[in-house]
Amino acid sequence: MIQNIESYYEKNRSRMFNEWAELLRFQSVSTDPEFNTACADCADWLVEHLKSLGFQAKIIITSGKPLVFAERAGKQGKPVVLYYGHYDVQPADPLEDWLSDPFEPEWRDGRLYARGAQDNKGQTFYFIKAIEALIAMDDLSCGIKILLEGEEESGSKGLAGSLPEIAEQLAADVLMVCDTSMVKEGVPTITMGLRGIISLEVVIKGSNRDLHSGGHGGLVKNPALELARLLTTLHDENGHIAVANYYQGVKEPSAGDREHILKSEFDEADYLDRIGAPPTGGEKAIHPLERVGFRPTIEINGLTSGYQGAGSKTIIPAEARAKLTSRLTGNQDPEFCLSKLIDHLNKHAPADISLSINEAKVHGPALLLSSDSKIIQQAREVLKELFEVEPVLNWGGGSIPIVSSLLRAINGDALIIGFGLDEDRIHSPNESFSERSFKEGFSYVYRMLQSLSGSKQ
Amino acid sequence: MIQNIESYYEKNRSRMFNEWAELLRFQSVSTDPEFNTACADCADWLVEHLKSLGFQAKIIITSGKPLVFAERAGKQGKPVVLYYGHYDVQPADPLEDWLSDPFEPEWRDGRLYARGAQDNKGQTFYFIKAIEALIAMDDLSCGIKILLEGEEESGSKGLAGSLPEIAEQLAADVLMVCDTSMVKEGVPTITMGLRGIISLEVVIKGSNRDLHSGGHGGLVKNPALELARLLTTLHDENGHIAVANYYQGVKEPSAGDREHILKSEFDEADYLDRIGAPPTGGEKAIHPLERVGFRPTIEINGLTSGYQGAGSKTIIPAEARAKLTSRLTGNQDPEFCLSKLIDHLNKHAPADISLSINEAKVHGPALLLSSDSKIIQQAREVLKELFEVEPVLNWGGGSIPIVSSLLRAINGDALIIGFGLDEDRIHSPNESFSERSFKEGFSYVYRMLQSLSGSKQ
Repeated sequence: MIQNIESYYEKNRSRMFNEWAELLRFQSVSTDPEFNTACADCADWLVEHLKSLGFQAKIIITSGKPLVFAERAGKQGKPVVLYYGHYDVQPADPLEDWLSDPFEPEWRDGRLYARGAQDNKGQTFYFIKAIEALIAMDDLSCGIKILLEGEEESGSKGLAGSLPEIAEQLAADVLMVCDTSMVKEGVPTITMGLRGIISLEVVIKGSNRDLHSGGHGGLVKNPALELARLLTTLHDENGHIAVANYYQGVKEPSAGDREHILKSEFDEADYLDRIGAPPTGGEKAIHPLERVGFRPTIEINGLTSGYQGAGSKTIIPAEARAKLTSRLTGNQDPEFCLSKLIDHLNKHAPADISLSINEAKVHGPALLLSSDSKIIQQAREVLKELFEVEPVLNWGGGSIPIVSSLLRAINGDALIIGFGLDEDRIHSPNESFSERSFKEGFSYVYRMLQSLSGSKQ
Repeated sequence: MIQNIESYYEKNRSRMFNEWAELLRFQSVSTDPEFNTACADCADWLVEHLKSLGFQAKIIITSGKPLVFAERAGKQGKPVVLYYGHYDVQPADPLEDWLSDPFEPEWRDGRLYARGAQDNKGQTFYFIKAIEALIAMDDLSCGIKILLEGEEESGSKGLAGSLPEIAEQLAADVLMVCDTSMVKEGVPTITMGLRGIISLEVVIKGSNRDLHSGGHGGLVKNPALELARLLTTLHDENGHIAVANYYQGVKEPSAGDREHILKSEFDEADYLDRIGAPPTGGEKAIHPLERVGFRPTIEINGLTSGYQGAGSKTIIPAEARAKLTSRLTGNQDPEFCLSKLIDHLNKHAPADISLSINEAKVHGPALLLSSDSKIIQQAREVLKELFEVEPVLNWGGGSIPIVSSLLRAINGDALIIGFGLDEDRIHSPNESFSERSFKEGFSYVYRMLQSLSGSKQ
């Protein structure tokens, strides 16, 4: 059987890569309305592509970007799998840092470079191609549903709003998601947790225009300095979040969870080498993997104020802005955290200068899976057989805000397993995905669905 | 005589305004090399214009932008006046905030709108036109030298470097500068002090790229947060600069100076109304005018880090930058202050993340004039006669870095008197200069030079 997959892959490799490149050419950036048409075109292309594989496929209109929904009936008594992915991508800026056009895919040294090459078009595409192979080899008895949204990078508003009315169509036994990473190359990784996320923008306004720093320096407060002061109130000197009651709902890892965490090697020197910075941020005296998987964060995503061009400009800026996101864990309530964060900012607001909060938004809650679940055991076996190494159970750190809502809607099991690597540089310039990773994902999906087909519901 | 000036002004008004508009059309932004040609063209235009008025005029090449130098001999025994001004302007950005093209002057409600309309093309142009009138009416017996530089807004490097070799050509009894403002409309103002200025950019670099805030949040330090922390160390809780030894050389106002300061009304409600922010910044428990005139500042002129576009982007930025300028007063030594500021930043640099200082630069020292000077008394009389109100002696707050060097080079008296107003919005979008102010400056220059012509050296 392994030989058959290998041979199918090799025979169809070149065509599959051409199709993948077609998918990557759509500039489906969801945060910027300029790309609305590109998103719609991308969704249409996916519907046509899934139809060509024998799916019943359609567009589902939402209040936001269109959903792609496709289904293919399975054999009586076999489980139904719902695959969830997204066709939207992060903005490509800063454009000048890309070595090739982010929307004109280019192969270099066994990697395909493009925005979305991995996140999530690349990982979604190996899922689709594995299904294509299973169909071609008449080896698929599970029912398959595929749901692809176009707003994962910007809050999943359309899908979240439509979820109640489409929940019945989505009914499935297992939710599969391939939008995560491996802890390192060659080590298959099962994501056991996703962090929740909330975001907002803080705006501090002083004068009614940028002021001459000579005539006004020493007279008015400087919004950039007041913003800096406000931002330093968010954490204490040990890196703990200083917002009142923020840790309500945070869950300590269980004894079993801790065992898995300690089993996962975390090589600080290797991290420094890859990332260019040591893993010395966040809360002191907590294991790095626990910080990422089980602890909330508040991060500054961007700062902007005054003059940012070449040379100097002697002004006191009229305003200063910071974009913040907070990752949540365990049972933290996103609405509660957002309101506590806003309370904190208002409480620490500087006098005599205006503070406003823009774009305050709940993206989604956190999710924690049980390491005792039967389907997790099944996935560990499949992965161990393919990779010849014990898979790592990983309490990720990232967020796929809609996944917890989807899981609640179908009330099934979840398999959150992806084949990304740090060097894929998702969300950064020069995002890429290697053929090696693509093929690993392809093989995992093929074998996992074979394994699920064997299990009577 | 008053009637003669009036009549000359009215007859030539329309032509003078057309010439002024010609001067404003040159995009002579000195901080950005893109505008080098516009700067050179502007200097050439000024040379031709001054020749047409009977001056011997020429370009003086420097290591930076060209200088315009013109002279016209006076009568035996009469003082020689050196006028210093600048033809370069601040960048026009943000362009979208301008109601008309910053380089296509437009009259609206008695004000001419353009970048440089006041600072310093407008104020320099009334000086030139007053000289033109004095020549036309055969009323000029002082010798006149005019020196216009093209780098006042970016550090005066070319002029500062050429100063030793051209000092002899510049020899004069009085230095006149018209690059300052009135405390309010109708109140003539003699600038008694200019602050020195130094600048630098702080850069904090973390990872080798922007990181996904899910996968890395809680692992690495956030450069934007570390920058915020560093910036908050620059001042204590009373607004005093916290850099060690920074106040060395700061001079307390004398009893006479304080009397003048207290005589100048400072209307806090009016300030709030005009500026949109109350005058509650800077050091606590010090009079606002003393804060601006006699106290040093460190201001953030700009902040930049990470994502600044529409919507949110879930990254930990790879780096964060702040542009800083510091105004100096009295006898503070700019080189000393710059090194102390850099020492402070390095001492408070965060661990495990890189700090670098870019573009550290001394622009010039401060300058303080004596309120007992004879020429200041003479200027007070001229201004009192013209405005029918007692002029204010003002310890400004702004900087004209080259002026103290020029004054030292000629070893003469200084008259730093300008007719700007806050509503001219210099350095901001929609800079303008009113005809009223232009005419006030024109009359002052005319009468001051008449007065100086009467005084035997």
